[in-house]
Amino acid sequence: MAMSNQIDLTTLTAEAKCKVDRYLLACLKSDNRFDSAIFEAMRYSVGAGGKRLRAIMLLQANRNGGGAEEDALPFAAAIEFIHTYSLIHDDLPAMDDDNLRRGKPTNHVVFGEAMAILAGDGLLNLAFQKMIAQVIAMADKTAGLNALHTIATAAGVDGMLGGQAMDVAAEGEVIAEDVLHYIHTHKTAALIEASLVAGAQLASCPQRVVDHYRTFGHHLGMAFQIVDDILDIEGDCAQLGKATGVDSVHQKATFPALYGLAESRRRAQKHTELAMATLDQIAERGSYLHVLSRLLLCRDY
Amino acid sequence: MAMSNQIDLTTLTAEAKCKVDRYLLACLKSDNRFDSAIFEAMRYSVGAGGKRLRAIMLLQANRNGGGAEEDALPFAAAIEFIHTYSLIHDDLPAMDDDNLRRGKPTNHVVFGEAMAILAGDGLLNLAFQKMIAQVIAMADKTAGLNALHTIATAAGVDGMLGGQAMDVAAEGEVIAEDVLHYIHTHKTAALIEASLVAGAQLASCPQRVVDHYRTFGHHLGMAFQIVDDILDIEGDCAQLGKATGVDSVHQKATFPALYGLAESRRRAQKHTELAMATLDQIAERGSYLHVLSRLLLCRDY
Repeated sequence: MAMSNQIDLTTLTAEAKCKVDRYLLACLKSDNRFDSAIFEAMRYSVGAGGKRLRAIMLLQANRNGGGAEEDALPFAAAIEFIHTYSLIHDDLPAMDDDNLRRGKPTNHVVFGEAMAILAGDGLLNLAFQKMIAQVIAMADKTAGLNALHTIATAAGVDGMLGGQAMDVAAEGEVIAEDVLHYIHTHKTAALIEASLVAGAQLASCPQRVVDHYRTFGHHLGMAFQIVDDILDIEGDCAQLGKATGVDSVHQKATFPALYGLAESRRRAQKHTELAMATLDQIAERGSYLHVLSRLLLCRDY
Repeated sequence: MAMSNQIDLTTLTAEAKCKVDRYLLACLKSDNRFDSAIFEAMRYSVGAGGKRLRAIMLLQANRNGGGAEEDALPFAAAIEFIHTYSLIHDDLPAMDDDNLRRGKPTNHVVFGEAMAILAGDGLLNLAFQKMIAQVIAMADKTAGLNALHTIATAAGVDGMLGGQAMDVAAEGEVIAEDVLHYIHTHKTAALIEASLVAGAQLASCPQRVVDHYRTFGHHLGMAFQIVDDILDIEGDCAQLGKATGVDSVHQKATFPALYGLAESRRRAQKHTELAMATLDQIAERGSYLHVLSRLLLCRDY
């Protein structure tokens, strides 16, 4: 696969990202003057950029299974709304107290804390509204309901929120290995895994294929989070568009803090290999998801 | 209807409330030691009481239409989770900064702001998880999906959240009549209306009946909120279980602030009459919902 040497992540994902961006912003139009303030706050953070990786992975898994893109787009958007709401709430003064995200002032810096809380709530709610409306419109309600269930579970206390809560509870404490594992599988990997699984479910893929996407997504998500932890130490603030060194200031539970940098790199590598080996079972070598995963895990931003 | 003179709200709703309470707490059990902290925070506010009126109204509308109670309970619980999450976020220091709710310290006072934000998020997410799981389990997916759509819309930016956001945006400003109307219809009436509509939809009631529930719910919700505004001025703090006089401190958009107490009472009365007249179309005089509404709108707590 020569392409992976010639192409970078931005180029590879440009077309899909553009489609997702257009769809996301179309969902965020206020139709009256009363809710314009909350829509403006929601639009600000959704429009602030981001790689749209979760949406792109959902669309790609759905396409691989022969699913219709117009059925998958509302779910792809929902995943990005959920991801963005979690960032808005994470950045709040009571949480990580971050002022910079994707190179821009965070939501509460621009709109105030009260509106930032509501904008986050609004995006989580909107995610469900979009998915529910789509299930109602779909002929195959079972496929839609399965995807809806997958995403709802991954976003909630059994998934992302459970990880965030443990992260809050563990801040400043000595990190146990099982706690760190719980935080990383839930806080980050759960939603990435759900993107791929939901995409496959929307295409009515057989259970065996759905399971492979789950395993692939798990390892990809773990590798992704470990790379994120490493970049918080080694990365360049300007390139990342956010402050670095934040984890150690907050005494966050991270892989480097527990295992050191070298062992963290080894583990990221291990998860990458397991992800790739699983992906080989469901997609040809050199497929879009292969290239995307490679680029993602070798990134320096 | 002699009964309404002999019975109070607490007695009337005791049995249904007990059933709802039991179901709510059964939904909030942690099954591992990692998510016990967020579940504890969620359980604290859900368990702190409340009249469970929205859940009871949903169950009653469903029962009136001949629907099965076991299908309706997860939706009734979801409405209470959504109501409770909105109170937790409303009470935050960045929002209304309330320390007392239902006679107990508010969520963030007990668990800290970060966990309170996550507990609210967790309850909103759990509401959808419970409803989605129930739709998947139901034979009649259309009825379930319609109810799901009704509740999702009422909770989001086109409903409750839109009202909360306008409330935040309007704080301290001179209140225009149309803004006040928007806030009250969206912040409070939307979810009460949705409870009744969803209950009727779950029972597959004909559209005409669903529409009557919508109108009834709208007027009931408006009357309810105006009575709430009046109680914030005239009510007894100990009986209400929360601080009074809060609205005027925050210069909130309320009916008494715009119209004065006498005119507010007249309007509450008007909405009550319209609610009752609509209810006459779908339920016999003296029905459970008749008695409940009367007691609700004459309450002094």
